[in-house]
Amino acid sequence: MWRRNFVYLQKNVSNIFSASKISNSRCNCVHKLITVGYYHSFKRPQNITSKANFQYLHDVKLVDNVDTDSNTFTYRTHTCGELRSKHSGQKVTLCGWVQFQRLSKFLLLRDAYGLTQCIVSEGQDLPDIPLETVVRIKGTVVQRPKNMINPTMSTGEVEVIIKDCKILNNVNKLPFNLRDYQKPKEQLRLQYRYVDLRFPEMQSNLRFRSNMLHNMRKFLIEKYGFVEVETPTLFCRTPGGAREFVVPTHHKDLFYSLVQSPQQFKQMLMAGGVDRYFQVARCYRDETTRPDRQPEFTQLDIELSFTNLDGVLTLIEQLLYETYLQNLPKPPFERLTYKEAMESYGTDKPDLTYDLVFKNLTTLFKQKSKDLNFGAYALPYPSELGKLTAKSKEKIRELVKKYKNKVILHENIPKELGEDLAERIKHEIGSNSCIISMGESGNSCSCLGEIRELIASLLKSKNLLVTNEVIKPLWVVDFPLFVKGENGLETCHHPFTAPHPDDLDLLHTEPEKVRSLAYDLVINGNEVGGGSVRVHNAVLQEELLKILNIDSEKLSHFMDALKSGCPPHAGIALGIDRLVSLACNAESIRDVIAFPKSHDGKDPLSGAPNTISLDDKKYYHIV
Amino acid sequence: MWRRNFVYLQKNVSNIFSASKISNSRCNCVHKLITVGYYHSFKRPQNITSKANFQYLHDVKLVDNVDTDSNTFTYRTHTCGELRSKHSGQKVTLCGWVQFQRLSKFLLLRDAYGLTQCIVSEGQDLPDIPLETVVRIKGTVVQRPKNMINPTMSTGEVEVIIKDCKILNNVNKLPFNLRDYQKPKEQLRLQYRYVDLRFPEMQSNLRFRSNMLHNMRKFLIEKYGFVEVETPTLFCRTPGGAREFVVPTHHKDLFYSLVQSPQQFKQMLMAGGVDRYFQVARCYRDETTRPDRQPEFTQLDIELSFTNLDGVLTLIEQLLYETYLQNLPKPPFERLTYKEAMESYGTDKPDLTYDLVFKNLTTLFKQKSKDLNFGAYALPYPSELGKLTAKSKEKIRELVKKYKNKVILHENIPKELGEDLAERIKHEIGSNSCIISMGESGNSCSCLGEIRELIASLLKSKNLLVTNEVIKPLWVVDFPLFVKGENGLETCHHPFTAPHPDDLDLLHTEPEKVRSLAYDLVINGNEVGGGSVRVHNAVLQEELLKILNIDSEKLSHFMDALKSGCPPHAGIALGIDRLVSLACNAESIRDVIAFPKSHDGKDPLSGAPNTISLDDKKYYHIV
Repeated sequence: MWRRNFVYLQKNVSNIFSASKISNSRCNCVHKLITVGYYHSFKRPQNITSKANFQYLHDVKLVDNVDTDSNTFTYRTHTCGELRSKHSGQKVTLCGWVQFQRLSKFLLLRDAYGLTQCIVSEGQDLPDIPLETVVRIKGTVVQRPKNMINPTMSTGEVEVIIKDCKILNNVNKLPFNLRDYQKPKEQLRLQYRYVDLRFPEMQSNLRFRSNMLHNMRKFLIEKYGFVEVETPTLFCRTPGGAREFVVPTHHKDLFYSLVQSPQQFKQMLMAGGVDRYFQVARCYRDETTRPDRQPEFTQLDIELSFTNLDGVLTLIEQLLYETYLQNLPKPPFERLTYKEAMESYGTDKPDLTYDLVFKNLTTLFKQKSKDLNFGAYALPYPSELGKLTAKSKEKIRELVKKYKNKVILHENIPKELGEDLAERIKHEIGSNSCIISMGESGNSCSCLGEIRELIASLLKSKNLLVTNEVIKPLWVVDFPLFVKGENGLETCHHPFTAPHPDDLDLLHTEPEKVRSLAYDLVINGNEVGGGSVRVHNAVLQEELLKILNIDSEKLSHFMDALKSGCPPHAGIALGIDRLVSLACNAESIRDVIAFPKSHDGKDPLSGAPNTISLDDKKYYHIV
Repeated sequence: MWRRNFVYLQKNVSNIFSASKISNSRCNCVHKLITVGYYHSFKRPQNITSKANFQYLHDVKLVDNVDTDSNTFTYRTHTCGELRSKHSGQKVTLCGWVQFQRLSKFLLLRDAYGLTQCIVSEGQDLPDIPLETVVRIKGTVVQRPKNMINPTMSTGEVEVIIKDCKILNNVNKLPFNLRDYQKPKEQLRLQYRYVDLRFPEMQSNLRFRSNMLHNMRKFLIEKYGFVEVETPTLFCRTPGGAREFVVPTHHKDLFYSLVQSPQQFKQMLMAGGVDRYFQVARCYRDETTRPDRQPEFTQLDIELSFTNLDGVLTLIEQLLYETYLQNLPKPPFERLTYKEAMESYGTDKPDLTYDLVFKNLTTLFKQKSKDLNFGAYALPYPSELGKLTAKSKEKIRELVKKYKNKVILHENIPKELGEDLAERIKHEIGSNSCIISMGESGNSCSCLGEIRELIASLLKSKNLLVTNEVIKPLWVVDFPLFVKGENGLETCHHPFTAPHPDDLDLLHTEPEKVRSLAYDLVINGNEVGGGSVRVHNAVLQEELLKILNIDSEKLSHFMDALKSGCPPHAGIALGIDRLVSLACNAESIRDVIAFPKSHDGKDPLSGAPNTISLDDKKYYHIV
């Protein structure tokens, strides 16, 4: 919708606004929203990964703000990004931070919307105001002399002659300067986040996040009648899930758990007749030991009744197409089964922006192995890459170690196999340059999958990687329902995932072979969402819990809900932090979160977590 | 906006849609949203309080859903509230719950959108399907015979001839029936919330809540350029606030605190240049011992830079006027100072829908008292109420006890005062019927304030209460900055509240007399929001913390933020649970929360809080 109407939008705004369809009203909205964005000219950090080249909706520069008014309820008349030639002669009040001062004449004033150059009248001098001081400037807009126009600045046609400059707040020495070319280390940025947030990238990221979520809400509520329902975060422990934070209460030995997702609630909402639910939900997992994880994170949580796998996938495709990135390919997105993904790319979240695909050589090698699960796969790559360096080989050896040397790797086609076999392999893969991995099938694939990423980055560094579209969303479906864990079978998704109807017979005979109706959404190698058709039948749910060795007594409320007349339903959760960081080309999800924790779950800003008083401990019975 | 365009909207929808202003696009949106609501004909519980008579935006019945599509991505073709004469002859698929079955012929199918009558063809019989069974019905829409049309049902013109009826899920015995006239006790409703949610009121309340919040987001983001920023809930303890839940971590003796509000974060966002912030924020307070409080609740949290008290008040008036209740009076809302409110109504959250106002008689009585803070107030009421009953008098005696008998009460004008004084009092208050309260001024007012509510309900029960508009929003301003606590001065709002600039001189001499720039929003006697202009000057903030005996070291990150170039700013938080429950005429905030806790913070549904394993306790070092 957006794309198609885009050109019209520029030509004739009112024409678009006159249509009554939501799709157009959405354009209308996006149009208004994106113009609010931060349009400093700033450099985005160059990134060698394939994540570059996203086209943000908020990157599109349209006409000036229409309708959106960022000045009402304040004592400024304009933002620092707003003034143009047409404002010449107007008396204005601007508020902002002193970005720069020059020759005691010029003062560059900054706020979240841009920069405006202010000057003192002839014969006057500016006092020396420290950078980042907060000031209010009253003055008159004048056109700049032609040779002074700055085309790289949105307000570069004009400047403001200062009539009155009032210091609203002083500034102490700052921990770092607000200059793009001297970005401080992350630890320092997090410790002084309130200063770091003034960087254009952070402003841009937070505003993109707000706009994206708002557009998603509009899509879900206005276009498709979804209801946003807030569900509790203080709940009871979910058996069989991730580690959940506990919250002690005043009642001795009684604890809440912080929800790892609203899963049970959204299913109970389905039983309760709220048939089209969503929530921008705060979730908690105590995974502070894993890097790049936040103890609290946000997901767009969606659930529908009377739907199936295709229903959910279509919904999400449409949602992302209309509210996420401008250059997202038109739905439907590509789908791969888990098996296909593993055997072609060695991972369940392959990056399909480039064409490095495995060739299955199992039949050629099989006779040599007694392992029933033996597999042999080759990863052909362009010969132009040349011989692998010692460093790359070392990296590959490290990878193989991770698989406990159960994988045999060959660089190129090994001569010791005999000329005949070598010829057949060469014929099969159509290249002389390849890496062959063999051993237990799953391990061989996974190991080769990691090597695939390494080869891709080597190719990229030499400009040899053939890339497809810049954004390749992909559904991975038909995941196994169970995985073997230390104590028997464990769930691959969560215990409420429906088995594939074609595999129900295998549930008690060969449960490991049962596929599920779970699905993951992968964008350029990043898992950005996952969901499933759920079990709505209490008898089947009971069976699954038994197989998983989960005491259904601990879920009696949930089991009762299934027995109360629960409709068939399915849903998904999208990781908002990840989606936004991809779109904003951020180096980490921390760059799209206003106040993130650092690696170990610590908050460098406030020092949290902290010690608490003995009284508090006594109150909560945790002495 | 809404009101003025409302009539046009019905007459000529496309005409309204053609305008490009947001105010109209908002109408457009509201219009679409409210038609999605639940339009069963159901009785709202009659309530004797003044909270009745709210006109909900979602109560307005407009034309059928325009644009909003609640069927896409599902295998139903229509909802159970959608079919009309115009659909006659169409083949449809409906999914829902069996609400009623009659004569083995008729089946009333229910979903969140309404009821549709389905019938079997001539000569066929329906099997006996238990109520609340989930079924899918395929059939053909036919016009009902004229004498069978049911005008109380939105789908009452048609019925569906069943071609195929498939049971999608069975139902076990339910804890209660879904009939309006036998509403179960709340404990049972909370325990089986997933069944309770099927009641029309609950569906309606949740949908109103979702729509209201969405409209507020549209207002803030699209019309006024606000940015929604998610802030952490795992944080450090705020000194001097409410009791905060603690969250143990894997690090021995280190705890997060669950935020009681995003106060510090939103102020740091201001320092960070995010000048127009809002968030629909989850907040936590461990107040499980207080009735009608939830351990977690939602507030619409707003903060602006470069603004003042009037800026915030105007913003909120406009926000509520455009997105809340249809019959909210046009801004500006009435304002009372704290002193005025106390001396006229005996409370800082007076219900102004009725006219019972104190008369100040202090000067008449003053010579008799040595108390410097002596006050005497009369509450005149219509003589038609007659003599107070023994029961009412007993209630009043109980009230006086609460004030430790420091208040002397008189029913009517006491003769023992002498005829002269009695006559002067009568002249002053213009009525013979009154209650006089005297003693320490604050106590006299507060006590009489409670009596005012009692008298109002007595008058109401006899239809003698003269009421003004049905909704009377009110700002209470000029609160005292400090209150006397057990250990010296405490903050009246929170430690970051700005003192009134006119009272700065008193800060060190008579701090109790210092007014603050705090404000509360009161609707019909309910405090629905509060906020303040904040301190942006680090020196002043340091002084206030010293007076409050709060160690500023514990807030060093916050103090540093103020020193980093923090703009002047102000903000507010609206209690969403309270706002929605008022609008929905709900008996408690629990009726507008999908899964609330009961009084003691317990969750009757899951049994949370629960015990946890010894392993977990060891992991978190809380054995």
